[in-house]
Amino acid sequence: MSDQHLDRLRAIVGATNVLSGADAAAFESDYRQVFHGRSLCVARPANTHEVSSVMAYCHANGISVVPQGGNTSLLGGSVPDDSGTSVILSLARLKRIRSLDATNATMTVDAGVTLNQARVKAEQAGALFPLRIGSEGSCQIGGNLSTNAGGTAVVRYGNMRDLVLGLEVVLPDGRIWNGLRGLRKDNAGYDLKHLFIGTEGTLGIITAAVLKLFPVPSSVSSAFLGLPTPEAALAVFSLMRRHLGTDVTAFELISSDAMTLVLSHLPNQASPLTDTHPWYVLIETSSNANQADAEAQLLAVLSDAMALGHIDDAVVASNARQAAEFWLIREEISDAQTKARGSVRCDISVPLSSIPQFIRETSAKVLSIAPKARMIVYGHIGDGNVHFNPLRPDDMPAEAFLGIHGAAIAGVIDHAASEMEGSISAEHGIGVAKRDELKVVRSREELEIAWAIKRALDPFNLLNPGKVLPTLSN
Amino acid sequence: MSDQHLDRLRAIVGATNVLSGADAAAFESDYRQVFHGRSLCVARPANTHEVSSVMAYCHANGISVVPQGGNTSLLGGSVPDDSGTSVILSLARLKRIRSLDATNATMTVDAGVTLNQARVKAEQAGALFPLRIGSEGSCQIGGNLSTNAGGTAVVRYGNMRDLVLGLEVVLPDGRIWNGLRGLRKDNAGYDLKHLFIGTEGTLGIITAAVLKLFPVPSSVSSAFLGLPTPEAALAVFSLMRRHLGTDVTAFELISSDAMTLVLSHLPNQASPLTDTHPWYVLIETSSNANQADAEAQLLAVLSDAMALGHIDDAVVASNARQAAEFWLIREEISDAQTKARGSVRCDISVPLSSIPQFIRETSAKVLSIAPKARMIVYGHIGDGNVHFNPLRPDDMPAEAFLGIHGAAIAGVIDHAASEMEGSISAEHGIGVAKRDELKVVRSREELEIAWAIKRALDPFNLLNPGKVLPTLSN
Repeated sequence: MSDQHLDRLRAIVGATNVLSGADAAAFESDYRQVFHGRSLCVARPANTHEVSSVMAYCHANGISVVPQGGNTSLLGGSVPDDSGTSVILSLARLKRIRSLDATNATMTVDAGVTLNQARVKAEQAGALFPLRIGSEGSCQIGGNLSTNAGGTAVVRYGNMRDLVLGLEVVLPDGRIWNGLRGLRKDNAGYDLKHLFIGTEGTLGIITAAVLKLFPVPSSVSSAFLGLPTPEAALAVFSLMRRHLGTDVTAFELISSDAMTLVLSHLPNQASPLTDTHPWYVLIETSSNANQADAEAQLLAVLSDAMALGHIDDAVVASNARQAAEFWLIREEISDAQTKARGSVRCDISVPLSSIPQFIRETSAKVLSIAPKARMIVYGHIGDGNVHFNPLRPDDMPAEAFLGIHGAAIAGVIDHAASEMEGSISAEHGIGVAKRDELKVVRSREELEIAWAIKRALDPFNLLNPGKVLPTLSN
Repeated sequence: MSDQHLDRLRAIVGATNVLSGADAAAFESDYRQVFHGRSLCVARPANTHEVSSVMAYCHANGISVVPQGGNTSLLGGSVPDDSGTSVILSLARLKRIRSLDATNATMTVDAGVTLNQARVKAEQAGALFPLRIGSEGSCQIGGNLSTNAGGTAVVRYGNMRDLVLGLEVVLPDGRIWNGLRGLRKDNAGYDLKHLFIGTEGTLGIITAAVLKLFPVPSSVSSAFLGLPTPEAALAVFSLMRRHLGTDVTAFELISSDAMTLVLSHLPNQASPLTDTHPWYVLIETSSNANQADAEAQLLAVLSDAMALGHIDDAVVASNARQAAEFWLIREEISDAQTKARGSVRCDISVPLSSIPQFIRETSAKVLSIAPKARMIVYGHIGDGNVHFNPLRPDDMPAEAFLGIHGAAIAGVIDHAASEMEGSISAEHGIGVAKRDELKVVRSREELEIAWAIKRALDPFNLLNPGKVLPTLSN
């Protein structure tokens, strides 16, 4: 039976584009090698029509399908279960940039185009595609959409959901919905694209999208601050929003422990500031003004903030190279943790106004569990989003730390976020890893509505089964 | 039976809040008196709990429900059918502003709060709620959400969908979904709010919302331009976006015929420009710079555009009073048409790059049908959205013009928009008036998905039945 399925799939996508056995292994785990599964095979269609044929075949034969883009997700959403009965549908060969309309400020791309390719294409046309996340060289537009990717420019530009005007989607039964409209206003009927954005491939396969492009700002300025408290960081953010409005593009918090860790990971990189501080903030602004005027505007606000006691020290990048160094520090925190091994990674959000209380109270709770844990706390506090990742003490092995304290620490963090009307997954999604936790933090009504939608579009639960939605008891 | 229903509803919302007979008449037609229906009664619950009880009762008894906010919609979405069997559910008594969090830049309001009340409340807190439409004194937040309202500041701030973070919704069977989260990043499960935004009350009753607030810009500048062509207007828009980025807040086109009409409607208002021009544009920018600097920036771009031959004449408002006069001209076009009687109102959008071709070709087609029709063309061309409303010739009665040419003209306009991958309803929605046209311009797949969602949430088709979704043949 399996052989027959493989033959039929080969007939659709070509023999070289059906991978099984050892050839499929790379697709059966995520890139971090945290989640592992088995598949019937990997199918690699070349275009929307082939995706449709694969889906129709699988639907007719009761075969479940796991869509996969760059496979860079963090919670197992793109990895099959252990059954070995699913087809992994790789979108990697759908990589045409279909069109770019500079006047309409839109670009239509296939799902398999990488984020970096999309950004470069926009740049070549004198425009900006603003999504900015660490994995941009590997992650694909289809994955960015199905996970509603966030990143470091959300304060100004929004999440991936806000950066798309239209979609093309293959439904679980193989029908194609062409919603590739490039319109900024369209109230003619239900806006179906939102069904497929952020639902992690459980309702349909996104095969192409119309992306919004933005004007390239005249100047970009960066600053690195040392501050006494998260309260002070929030006060600086409010001041900046008041005076610089939507020019505020990124506002990233870094804890003292995170700074120490990342600088030890980057031996050639010194801190931008002379002294150490309890907290750091990396700011980026985008402006229509020229570089000198924009920096003067930024400095004026920083001076005000310093006079008010919110900032202890600050340096504005004097050129693009120095700005890149600021960003290197921020972006290498993730790899520094991976290398250090033994961190409990949480990706929470709360209302901005609750950020200081959240950090203070949750840090205390974590330290009461593991008094010597290093508090690797960083992220997009301009969006209320903090990566709260307690790390094993220097003298405790990763396995021991995670085994003894991991679950308790994660529980404390997610519970605190939920209690403060926050989210247990601000940008990483749910995948399989946080699926059952969703049952605890979301209301019965919310999960029932989600299941009603799932059943309406995928009645046989064949599309990315076991992801996102927890099983509900009667 | 009817009496029993009324008694039960009186027990829920109080005797004085169930209106029937003559008392219900004002709710059975839209505010323009274009659509008329009959109802079993009007129920006016005071809070979410009462909405839930009304919905549960109607669901259990197979009674259809028509939700109604300010009743200012243009296509009949808030008016019941002729059967006299529906309950009109008025949200007008849900008018609490529940909370405002200045640091989080959010405000939680009941559905019945008017747009103007929300704007004033934000202003009092030193913030901006940016939705701007003509009916702001009457329309309600719940209606703005269920119709995804647009208006004149979409270029900078987006549509209503983009201005909300969380919702509270009563489902067709009376269950309450509390999704009142004030988070800028939240990928924990399906983002259900998008199901209820823009679906015109066919999937659930929005009872409250968390709205996004924005910083008040330091300065606002306005300019009024005379131009030779829509191509020139588009070139100016591109230039402005390139140099002023997201500072461009409004970019409104006005045709020569529209200008003539509105000035005759406003006898005390002169044109801001000395001469007449084939086309006019009203621009507004918002800036972090002070008034003088912002105006200088605007003037610099306008000078460039004039040197390039895109603009024939321009005046920048020298104060707020003059800016208000510019806006009066723009905003009174709608009333001027109503007073003139006999206009075919269409609300289309196309990709920005297609706007000039759309206007040129469609005007020619309309004039080939009715050679002396006045071309009242205006609207938000920065969003690709044009109100294309041919008006009867001066010497032809409204009834004759609409009777002879109305359907043909509307058909030509909507067909052209659809052919150019545009929308037949950019911001006014579908309601009942454009429902069957949706079947022509949307694919079978698109309507099937929409119906699948409708059936999943409202299996007995009791919530605003007959609105938005056309009946599909097998």
